Amino acid sequence: MISVVILGAGNVAYHLSKAIQNTKDFEVVQIFNRTLANIDPTLSTIPATDNPNDIVTADLYIIAVSDDFIDHISSLLLHKKGLIVHTSGSTSMKILKTHESYGVFYPLQTFSKSRTVDFSEIPICIEANSNEDLSLLNVLGKSLSNDVQEVSSEQRKGLHLAAVFVCNFVNHLYTIGAEICQENTLSFDVLKPLIVETANKVLTLPPSEAQTGPAKRNDKKTMKNHLKSLTQKEHQKIYKLLSKAIKKTYEL
Amino acid sequence: MISVVILGAGNVAYHLSKAIQNTKDFEVVQIFNRTLANIDPTLSTIPATDNPNDIVTADLYIIAVSDDFIDHISSLLLHKKGLIVHTSGSTSMKILKTHESYGVFYPLQTFSKSRTVDFSEIPICIEANSNEDLSLLNVLGKSLSNDVQEVSSEQRKGLHLAAVFVCNFVNHLYTIGAEICQENTLSFDVLKPLIVETANKVLTLPPSEAQTGPAKRNDKKTMKNHLKSLTQKEHQKIYKLLSKAIKKTYEL
Repeated sequence: MISVVILGAGNVAYHLSKAIQNTKDFEVVQIFNRTLANIDPTLSTIPATDNPNDIVTADLYIIAVSDDFIDHISSLLLHKKGLIVHTSGSTSMKILKTHESYGVFYPLQTFSKSRTVDFSEIPICIEANSNEDLSLLNVLGKSLSNDVQEVSSEQRKGLHLAAVFVCNFVNHLYTIGAEICQENTLSFDVLKPLIVETANKVLTLPPSEAQTGPAKRNDKKTMKNHLKSLTQKEHQKIYKLLSKAIKKTYEL
Repeated sequence: MISVVILGAGNVAYHLSKAIQNTKDFEVVQIFNRTLANIDPTLSTIPATDNPNDIVTADLYIIAVSDDFIDHISSLLLHKKGLIVHTSGSTSMKILKTHESYGVFYPLQTFSKSRTVDFSEIPICIEANSNEDLSLLNVLGKSLSNDVQEVSSEQRKGLHLAAVFVCNFVNHLYTIGAEICQENTLSFDVLKPLIVETANKVLTLPPSEAQTGPAKRNDKKTMKNHLKSLTQKEHQKIYKLLSKAIKKTYEL
């Protein structure tokens, strides 16, 4: 059994702890978090500590905290012999270089505690400072997911940036859609089939081929009417900028 | 059997023709299009014409053309007795008011010829100038979909605008994501599970609760690094505007 300590209690730490507990070769032997109360009660079978001096010896330490705290948590593990990794998309592996064995274990997905995720479909991007460590991360990755890839710090940064566009920004557009529905006394439910089909479409078509709508057709009349209908200045700005970007992409 | 003439050969006309042909109570008796060659070959069993004088008598005429041509196609049907509807999200029902019986049959979905769509899940928004006509549209709607709603022209305009945000604009963000992947020699495939989960998440969570990412956390360091990584000015502008909008939505 390969022993794992999880450091953190946020969304990634929570889902990773759950998923690793369900593997046959890895065991979460401890969760460290400064506020024990923030550790989800469903993880209560796993020993937990808020005291850095009580962190146990393990084969693998997974730092799953906000980017700004990786450095601090890393410093608490200075005397540890195991492999130390973080789970951040936008932080270089080098932040852990004071350790002998270090790497990155980045699951590319959006996590919320209230939603169960199927790890088997999540791409896991791994990186390590030695082949031996890379191989351990590969074994862990494959015990969770069918898609484990070696990705450099530089590529991972690009991936994280792309993820902001296709996930965080996309979700904000959903939020605007929901607001417009509300203003028109319509349920957000009516948009759901469209949202799902828009996502599913790019599983088989490149997004540039899937593009439709007034901006692509350069349908000025519709765009003008839409701008008039928008009640919030910020929504107007977003409408203008994205329409312009689409127009530019598809014009000759 | 209720007879239907479809006017148009674009994506909506194509998918509607196919779906109506599969109902037991409705039959597409003719497709009218100015360019016969644009009618998909898989619809060749349906009689077609490019001559306005040859448009046959039918119970229902569905004008499925670009918004700018609805008026013109409507004028070709002036002497017809049947119910005349258009399929546009952003055009008022009143554009057809020169006819005795008129209405709107708006399927809220993104259509591409290369993709089969399951009509049963598509919300169909109907409107008509009489209860009798509304009832006919309701019967047609229900023979295609489980979700038929009476929606006013004003509400439909709002819906179409919301659809631009959650479909057309979202798809452009996917396109940017694909470009960033390419720049980092990564396959767009790696983003697909994230894209699908981001869409599926809002089926059960309101999008405002599903929001994650650096802008929501006001993680300035990550946002600054992202802006530096973006190679295109336009992508930087989109990043800044959407991050600002998210920040504003979630700040106290």
